[in-house]
Amino acid sequence: MSRTLIELLGDELPAEALVTDPDVTASYAHDMASFCDAGTPAVVVLPRTVEQVQHVMRTATALRVPVVPQGARTGLSGGANATDGCVVLSLVKMDRILEINPVDRIAVVEPGVINATLSRAVNEKGLYYPPDPSSWEMCTIGGNIGTASGGLCCVKYGVTAEYVLGLDVVLADGRLLSTGRRTAKGVAGYDLTRLFVGSEGSLGVVVRATLALKPQPPQQLVLAAEFASAAAACDAVCKIMEGGHVPSLLELMDRTTVKAVNDMAHMGLPETTEALLLAAFDTPDPAQDLAAVGALCEAAGATQVVPAEDAAESELLLQARRLSLTALEAVKGTTMIDDVCVPRSRLGELLEGVERIADKYALTIGVCAHAGDGNTHPTVCFDAQDADEGRRARESFDEIMALGLELGGTITGEHGVGVLKKEWLARELGPVGVDVQRAVKATFDPLGLLNPGKLF
Amino acid sequence: MSRTLIELLGDELPAEALVTDPDVTASYAHDMASFCDAGTPAVVVLPRTVEQVQHVMRTATALRVPVVPQGARTGLSGGANATDGCVVLSLVKMDRILEINPVDRIAVVEPGVINATLSRAVNEKGLYYPPDPSSWEMCTIGGNIGTASGGLCCVKYGVTAEYVLGLDVVLADGRLLSTGRRTAKGVAGYDLTRLFVGSEGSLGVVVRATLALKPQPPQQLVLAAEFASAAAACDAVCKIMEGGHVPSLLELMDRTTVKAVNDMAHMGLPETTEALLLAAFDTPDPAQDLAAVGALCEAAGATQVVPAEDAAESELLLQARRLSLTALEAVKGTTMIDDVCVPRSRLGELLEGVERIADKYALTIGVCAHAGDGNTHPTVCFDAQDADEGRRARESFDEIMALGLELGGTITGEHGVGVLKKEWLARELGPVGVDVQRAVKATFDPLGLLNPGKLF
Repeated sequence: MSRTLIELLGDELPAEALVTDPDVTASYAHDMASFCDAGTPAVVVLPRTVEQVQHVMRTATALRVPVVPQGARTGLSGGANATDGCVVLSLVKMDRILEINPVDRIAVVEPGVINATLSRAVNEKGLYYPPDPSSWEMCTIGGNIGTASGGLCCVKYGVTAEYVLGLDVVLADGRLLSTGRRTAKGVAGYDLTRLFVGSEGSLGVVVRATLALKPQPPQQLVLAAEFASAAAACDAVCKIMEGGHVPSLLELMDRTTVKAVNDMAHMGLPETTEALLLAAFDTPDPAQDLAAVGALCEAAGATQVVPAEDAAESELLLQARRLSLTALEAVKGTTMIDDVCVPRSRLGELLEGVERIADKYALTIGVCAHAGDGNTHPTVCFDAQDADEGRRARESFDEIMALGLELGGTITGEHGVGVLKKEWLARELGPVGVDVQRAVKATFDPLGLLNPGKLF
Repeated sequence: MSRTLIELLGDELPAEALVTDPDVTASYAHDMASFCDAGTPAVVVLPRTVEQVQHVMRTATALRVPVVPQGARTGLSGGANATDGCVVLSLVKMDRILEINPVDRIAVVEPGVINATLSRAVNEKGLYYPPDPSSWEMCTIGGNIGTASGGLCCVKYGVTAEYVLGLDVVLADGRLLSTGRRTAKGVAGYDLTRLFVGSEGSLGVVVRATLALKPQPPQQLVLAAEFASAAAACDAVCKIMEGGHVPSLLELMDRTTVKAVNDMAHMGLPETTEALLLAAFDTPDPAQDLAAVGALCEAAGATQVVPAEDAAESELLLQARRLSLTALEAVKGTTMIDDVCVPRSRLGELLEGVERIADKYALTIGVCAHAGDGNTHPTVCFDAQDADEGRRARESFDEIMALGLELGGTITGEHGVGVLKKEWLARELGPVGVDVQRAVKATFDPLGLLNPGKLF
């Protein structure tokens, strides 16, 4: 009689690394996305070593069982959702920081390290790991690599992809591949590192990463500017970027978001505010940069410009932005967070379009945006108990993606495709793009076992 | 009777785009690398449109004829060398800058645009395209993309790869693939853009690129520091980087290079100099940064520190560095320029090792280095007429790569693999790496027609 999946996994994994209790495994079934189906895992595996991950992949390949790699499941597109009968491969126990080197400005980490843990550890050595998705206190570096996560820092510092120098990856058949380098530069062969970054666990399982670090910049200083129209705020964004400024943060909240935050946290933001822009600089003389940017905001029609004078005031101004998603969730109980990114010169058109779409579907849609990147998070608020409202929410969500593509943008700036945006990926890539991407997938995972049903 | 390659190409290419005169085609046979074999092309094609490139690839696929894409042939590893009977596909006539957008901070260009032409064009709009290989007045953006070229700017601004947002690529079978985006961020599907960057024309033919731009920084100010030993100069590099400084340039010339430059240009550099370090800052207050870095150099044992006071003085200090390769070429008539990159903390060991290797082979080997990146160009000087010296040059060249790998480095920081370092690529990647890279190559180019014999 052939041995079972669990028995074979147990050959090289300790009992505590194998979770089969259905009540527990069910809690690993999905990430934080709405509207994404999730299956029932056969088993959750929590390896602690590279060899154990290799054993999982060899076993899965031998038995043709799908494997869903997972970090902290804070994703917003269902990219970590289980499929029926799969092995959930949770990397959260591989959570060691193996090295921090201030001369080479690199860190070597296992995939389960929490983003905030790494950020704090490198700070202690005068270094800076910029990527800061809003889930940074919970999400893992492995998960960040899987979706090439962004955050507030990107307008100056870019996304996770720009900080991944090299990877150790367990391939579908269990072989261990090392990509990239520890050096500042290197062009030996194809850039497979970047191929894995953002591949949502569909090409291999990242078990180690060499990350680039920056020196810790000066404390940033924040400015808030209120506008009587979203268009004026977007115009200010264009003026700031065209003016050659390099803010460390450039965020926008629309009227709906400002109101939601006010309603929840009573922050006393003026009810007349149609858009709030937050800009920050971590330069040697941030006050001077804020003065220049403040003047550009006024030229674009800002009704009020409030520069912070110190770190505490800056943090206070950022609170409104940090509370945005929670506040929008409170509006109707459930949200769908979109992630459309457009060229920043088209930001105004996107915001105008979202307002039109909200009217059309009679929905509340709040937009907060990494405005400097043109990366918006139109957030559809709806009552999950109301089937018709749910349907309208999904339709408006899709219409926003269509608008993003029309404006020369992308359906996802930093959240990934997962299952949520599968059909839309094909639309963005076009037939040749899809063919080539599928061919790449087949090269790395000919049996289609790694995170099946995601992306394509 | 079947029609010939030239006839079929002529179906959709004007006569002036097809060069068959053997005297002329011979001039397209190789790039600027030493010790790299080159074959005889059947024809050189100079297309002006994407459709013409597609026609070339369809024809080549139909007839199973190899295609070697070329830019300005300034490469240093034979990556653009012809193979016998190939179509040389020169992209130099596709040289239009299609767009420069200061709000979105992007440029859209054809592959034949000269690096310096683009740099000047964006400067006029207050923008900056950082990649600056030393051939920047001649080399093309397409060629830069092919090898992911670097330059002096990389210690602060990174290599070409970091500026390529999206590509249009003609695939081996003639299909047109669009990758990437115009937006600041985007994670829709696998990062195929980066897969093409540095692929040396072996996966597809880049026919259009969307490039990221930076705002034009302030004029940089340069400091020169002389050291009584290479070890002390490398120690200064480590102290500067560990100290959190972000120089816009951090270059090192060893004793041999300093002497060669002195001999050629009579610059009056002290004959006692064992190593010269050049640091620059393009910050708002570069003099202050230079003072801090100057102090670190002195702490590391610099015998003299000379900060420039203005742009003209800065340019003068940089002259020595710019003349390095020409000066080293003058030593014996021929050079082989290596491109080993090590973690910057191992730079001192590399320089020490190169000196040992020069002694062992009784050769002159000068090192100039992008020290801040750990990217060295040990340059073997030899007499090409002297067979034994040529053999020793090649052996020492290889031994330097072995040393680089031992120190945790890579065989190529920015020049690429081409034919020069094929055997060494396998050594760096290891068997799993080579297998996977070959599989990727086969996915994009199943018939092996694109730049055959390069990389692998």
